[in-house]
Amino acid sequence: MIKTDILIIGAGPTGLFTVFEAGLLKLRCHLIDALPQPGGQCSEIYPKKPIYDIPAYPEILAGDLTDKLMEQIKQFEPGFTLGERADTIDKQEDGTFIVTTNKGTKHQAPVVAIAGGLGSFEPRKPPISNINNYEGKGVEYMIKEPEMYRGKDVVIAGGGDSALDWSIFLADVANSVTLIHRRNEFRGHLDSVDQVQKLKNEGIINLITPAEVKEIVGNDKVEGVVVHKDNEEPFTIPTDHFIPLFGLSPKLGPIADWGLEIEKNAIKVNNALDYQTNIPGIYAIGDVNTYPGKLKLILCGFHEATLMCQSAFKRIFPDKKYVMKYTTVGGVEGFDGTKKEAPKAVIKKIE
Amino acid sequence: MIKTDILIIGAGPTGLFTVFEAGLLKLRCHLIDALPQPGGQCSEIYPKKPIYDIPAYPEILAGDLTDKLMEQIKQFEPGFTLGERADTIDKQEDGTFIVTTNKGTKHQAPVVAIAGGLGSFEPRKPPISNINNYEGKGVEYMIKEPEMYRGKDVVIAGGGDSALDWSIFLADVANSVTLIHRRNEFRGHLDSVDQVQKLKNEGIINLITPAEVKEIVGNDKVEGVVVHKDNEEPFTIPTDHFIPLFGLSPKLGPIADWGLEIEKNAIKVNNALDYQTNIPGIYAIGDVNTYPGKLKLILCGFHEATLMCQSAFKRIFPDKKYVMKYTTVGGVEGFDGTKKEAPKAVIKKIE
Repeated sequence: MIKTDILIIGAGPTGLFTVFEAGLLKLRCHLIDALPQPGGQCSEIYPKKPIYDIPAYPEILAGDLTDKLMEQIKQFEPGFTLGERADTIDKQEDGTFIVTTNKGTKHQAPVVAIAGGLGSFEPRKPPISNINNYEGKGVEYMIKEPEMYRGKDVVIAGGGDSALDWSIFLADVANSVTLIHRRNEFRGHLDSVDQVQKLKNEGIINLITPAEVKEIVGNDKVEGVVVHKDNEEPFTIPTDHFIPLFGLSPKLGPIADWGLEIEKNAIKVNNALDYQTNIPGIYAIGDVNTYPGKLKLILCGFHEATLMCQSAFKRIFPDKKYVMKYTTVGGVEGFDGTKKEAPKAVIKKIE
Repeated sequence: MIKTDILIIGAGPTGLFTVFEAGLLKLRCHLIDALPQPGGQCSEIYPKKPIYDIPAYPEILAGDLTDKLMEQIKQFEPGFTLGERADTIDKQEDGTFIVTTNKGTKHQAPVVAIAGGLGSFEPRKPPISNINNYEGKGVEYMIKEPEMYRGKDVVIAGGGDSALDWSIFLADVANSVTLIHRRNEFRGHLDSVDQVQKLKNEGIINLITPAEVKEIVGNDKVEGVVVHKDNEEPFTIPTDHFIPLFGLSPKLGPIADWGLEIEKNAIKVNNALDYQTNIPGIYAIGDVNTYPGKLKLILCGFHEATLMCQSAFKRIFPDKKYVMKYTTVGGVEGFDGTKKEAPKAVIKKIE
């Protein structure tokens, strides 16, 4: 059982910044995210895209935003359960909650902050009838540990940035990489498209277009895929892994069944007081919540996280009085023993 | 008459970021501030101090925060009335407001956003009975145009960073600099204290401690100050300027008389819907406002500014429907003709 003060569902920018604001209040956080790395959409969907409306950043790449937030919260030693989806929540007699993931990991905390963005990102699966049987047995929809492909034969399907970038990356790692796409045209960064073209010309990537994988073969695990190419007889390619990268689509998912008031696929919160849901102790912050005037912007999530932490503090320590100190005045004291603070002014005689 | 869409009172971080969010909605802004430069407290009081709680900035100097915001809003060409205090507001029959400064500059806009922080910064004045008579005639409490001291004799009073830093700066500009402080000890950055010591040793700065200026002499303008030093007869130093730098203290000031609901020296706003005050069309954002759960943090001001701009848009264009576009998707189009946007993905054949 993982125990913490604030259990955060969702490790996107809002969830990450929550760790900082909680840390200022000496509250510890643990984050759960279905994606294999922190940053949410920013890291998974558009890490190389610039964002222009983060205050005081005229321009920042989404991936760099994640890095900066990770650096900012490092002092507060957040825990992470990554690659697992928060599935169920149970309120205990002592008022705490236990959240269990799809892999059975259990987390206990007096406060739960849902910072789930548009929901957990679920892969779009290709329409192959028996694909579910091979999940975890050679079929992966996201690449979590590239090293597991070392020396293996890999078939990637898809025509976007993920398919291009992973084909390039795995060309160095796998024994063979086959890239299959139902069109001849790929959509992605010019660099990536050109590089795949080059690797194909060099015979390093095996490209099959326009074509589709329509069947998976193998006994206990993937042993091959059946490819349908225009004007050709279907043929089988032996492979250890089949990785369809058709994008992720967000689903509110199991959270929708937690007894929270839902409106337009978002969780209703009390208007801007502390972003608490209809279940005391469960908060919803960032894109996942809704209230009159709500804007789904990262900077709004930062604000909501900040107010929410104050309320969480009062819930966890009903008798403690918290006096806010500005970081400029009081500095920031990490749980790891480090302290950041402004250089002190000296008082010195001039004679 | 200066005309604009949103007239912002206060050019601190919240006021500055308002220009950006308004710009995304194609609304133009003009800012009024009593201080001689944008940035509010961040620029005037603690430009060299690090702030640790700006999201995604593990550390940023307050002065750099101002610079980054100025860079971010540049595309939207904000207007500035600096060094003037917003004194009166008059609602016109057409629903617009006219705001007049203490120097008589008039500004007209359909929306007024008060981002006044803790108030306008008023200098702490030394207890010299006739000092008011010399204001603007050789007595200055803030240095707005350092060039006006070129070749002049200057007396600075004070023992903090401002007094130290301006003494150092003007040592290069003025004919003579005399620094007077009622203690022997100065309080400031070690660098500054050491440099004043050095300039004093070299005979470039004339240091008189512990001492106080108790009188100003001169007919139409400052001609000298009378210095009282411990165990000595009072003596007069001829000077063109007397600059007491005893700090600034924020005062809500004339805004308190605008008919707005005030609570604990802050302006009450409707809770977090759009941060509008009791007078429709006048909003209060950032440290100057109050509502249940309010935190006086810069990041909260950013959020409030953002929601406020949406409401201002509806007020100015009641019939227009605004569809929010993410800057990552739609880019940012400035009033100056520039456009920032993400590099487009290509769709390209690989063969």
